Amino acid sequence: MNQPAAEQSIMRQAYEAAIQGHRGANPLVGAVLVEHPEHDAAPHILATGYHQGAGTFHAERDCLTKARAAGVTDFSRTTLYTTLEPCTHYGRQPACTDLITEAGIPRVVVGATDPSPNGGGAQLLRGRGAGVVVGVLGEQCRELNHRWNQAAAQGRPFVTVHLAQSIDARIAAADGTSQWITSEASRQHTHRIRQRVDAILVGTNTTQIDDPRLTARDTQGRPTEAQPLRTVMGLRQIPAAARLTQDRAEGDGWLQLRTRDPLQALQTLASTTHNGHPVKHVLVEGGQSVLSAFFAADLVDEIFLYTAPIILGAGRSSLGDIGVSTLAEARQFALDPAEGGPTTIMDNDVCIHLKPHPKGTR
Amino acid sequence: MNQPAAEQSIMRQAYEAAIQGHRGANPLVGAVLVEHPEHDAAPHILATGYHQGAGTFHAERDCLTKARAAGVTDFSRTTLYTTLEPCTHYGRQPACTDLITEAGIPRVVVGATDPSPNGGGAQLLRGRGAGVVVGVLGEQCRELNHRWNQAAAQGRPFVTVHLAQSIDARIAAADGTSQWITSEASRQHTHRIRQRVDAILVGTNTTQIDDPRLTARDTQGRPTEAQPLRTVMGLRQIPAAARLTQDRAEGDGWLQLRTRDPLQALQTLASTTHNGHPVKHVLVEGGQSVLSAFFAADLVDEIFLYTAPIILGAGRSSLGDIGVSTLAEARQFALDPAEGGPTTIMDNDVCIHLKPHPKGTR
Repeated sequence: MNQPAAEQSIMRQAYEAAIQGHRGANPLVGAVLVEHPEHDAAPHILATGYHQGAGTFHAERDCLTKARAAGVTDFSRTTLYTTLEPCTHYGRQPACTDLITEAGIPRVVVGATDPSPNGGGAQLLRGRGAGVVVGVLGEQCRELNHRWNQAAAQGRPFVTVHLAQSIDARIAAADGTSQWITSEASRQHTHRIRQRVDAILVGTNTTQIDDPRLTARDTQGRPTEAQPLRTVMGLRQIPAAARLTQDRAEGDGWLQLRTRDPLQALQTLASTTHNGHPVKHVLVEGGQSVLSAFFAADLVDEIFLYTAPIILGAGRSSLGDIGVSTLAEARQFALDPAEGGPTTIMDNDVCIHLKPHPKGTR
Repeated sequence: MNQPAAEQSIMRQAYEAAIQGHRGANPLVGAVLVEHPEHDAAPHILATGYHQGAGTFHAERDCLTKARAAGVTDFSRTTLYTTLEPCTHYGRQPACTDLITEAGIPRVVVGATDPSPNGGGAQLLRGRGAGVVVGVLGEQCRELNHRWNQAAAQGRPFVTVHLAQSIDARIAAADGTSQWITSEASRQHTHRIRQRVDAILVGTNTTQIDDPRLTARDTQGRPTEAQPLRTVMGLRQIPAAARLTQDRAEGDGWLQLRTRDPLQALQTLASTTHNGHPVKHVLVEGGQSVLSAFFAADLVDEIFLYTAPIILGAGRSSLGDIGVSTLAEARQFALDPAEGGPTTIMDNDVCIHLKPHPKGTR
């Protein structure tokens, strides 16, 4: 068996596990634990794990937990494949490097190194005597989180955008009616995303036109336990009776980001604490000028594009000028295989899941 | 076994076969031939067939041909299920009622009756002594071709629309650049559709702006053998050097439909002969004013919506005013399960296949 090809094949399974997760506060990571029964025999897979989002097990721990649940007690002939270098520090979860060492796993194969302060795991494990190979399917594993790394490098939260529009990319009819363009299933999907983000962001204009509550609600319409921070970006005054304030003072569940610069808004959010931790994942829901500003500044890391099968022909468009004047400058995205794949049918709507194209433009 | 449920279950299989076909000049039809081995035993399926478009076998003939190829010679204990009443007259294909009688099939179960001059098959077969049941999954089978029937009743061709646009529903950037917004795979899909339609229709504006050839080309870019009639709708003069004329006189492969009324244009086409038969299927490719006129007049029977994962933010929109002023009046479509299902990934694009919602608006 060609060793590099075999290693790549297992890493590909770790990659496939990784993309079952969802993008956001943490990077996508997948892990596969294999056993080498005897010299030169093909390894067999003991367990597969992936990271399911902030506050849940890291991929390595998920994988080891599953292996132990399946009866594995001796890790002395195993190799752990992980798409991202195991972390070295304690955050909400114990350091994966320690879990690996404690289990006695002698060999670790890593896809991409971690450029963040969580990095250095490969060197640490080598220092403890483990065999460590780095860079198997490296480009693919790096690309998996290239925008997450970019967000971290910019000191800003990860940005998911919600675009819900008609076939002709309108978000309201000529007379302003907009409830509801998308289906019940699409709106429930949005509420599930609202539940896992740290903050929601809209423009001041949206508070005047649509007056949304911006709460995460369950299928019965009841607010869920965890609620994102409700934020409004822009310099204009929010109406005193705006529903998102819930008659509370600013800072109590909501706040206004008094800027028109999306990066500045995001950096403010990164230093804001909500539900006990900093804002690391923001859902930008609209309207047109806020969304266009985020796209113009290349600050969109993920899009859920809901297309309702209706034509309006007139009315507000979802997006306006983003500084592109010719086709070659178009802002370019790519189908995102993560979290259920690039297309999902939601009642009569189609949701397309997109990520920025690695090259940005074409 | 509950007889109606069993009949519905087999008819559902005929329906699933029918939607493997593509919409156009002829209705979608599926057929299933079953054998009853003994009294009260569950029937087993001998063959399934469907209609693959103008000039190919009707579903019933496709099904009987497959049954014979599988060794069936005695049809005396069989029932033929067909989503549409078998045809009674000779067109490009022999009448299905005659094929059924000649084979000696004693019982026929029909989904929907055929309101066209091809109808009357149920009565004809009953007159010849066959047992005929009509209306099993009737609503679903009628809905399958409700737009095809409407087109026939209006004396016009079936209309397929091609919409190829950016995420923000633009068909050109601010400076007019538009080649190519969609992927190679999307454009090849369009060329396959061009090969099977009788005519392509664009507006005079498109001949001035994009100057398309409107030919059907293979994957190497060579014109295919069968070419659709190239038509231009509108009152303005076509540029003398327009590529679609191929330097030939009007009537020789191309023609101008000198009207702004889409129904009038379609009725003219219905009485035009191309490649030896009348125009029964038209592909409307654009631009904005022609497409908007067809949508405003509710003359779109099918849409292939290609979304390229790019954002332009400015430039020409795919659609303009269609006379809708409030959301409740929106022109409503539905995901079309026919021909490969409602969504297809084409390189980096997503193609959504839509049909008019039976109710038209919501």
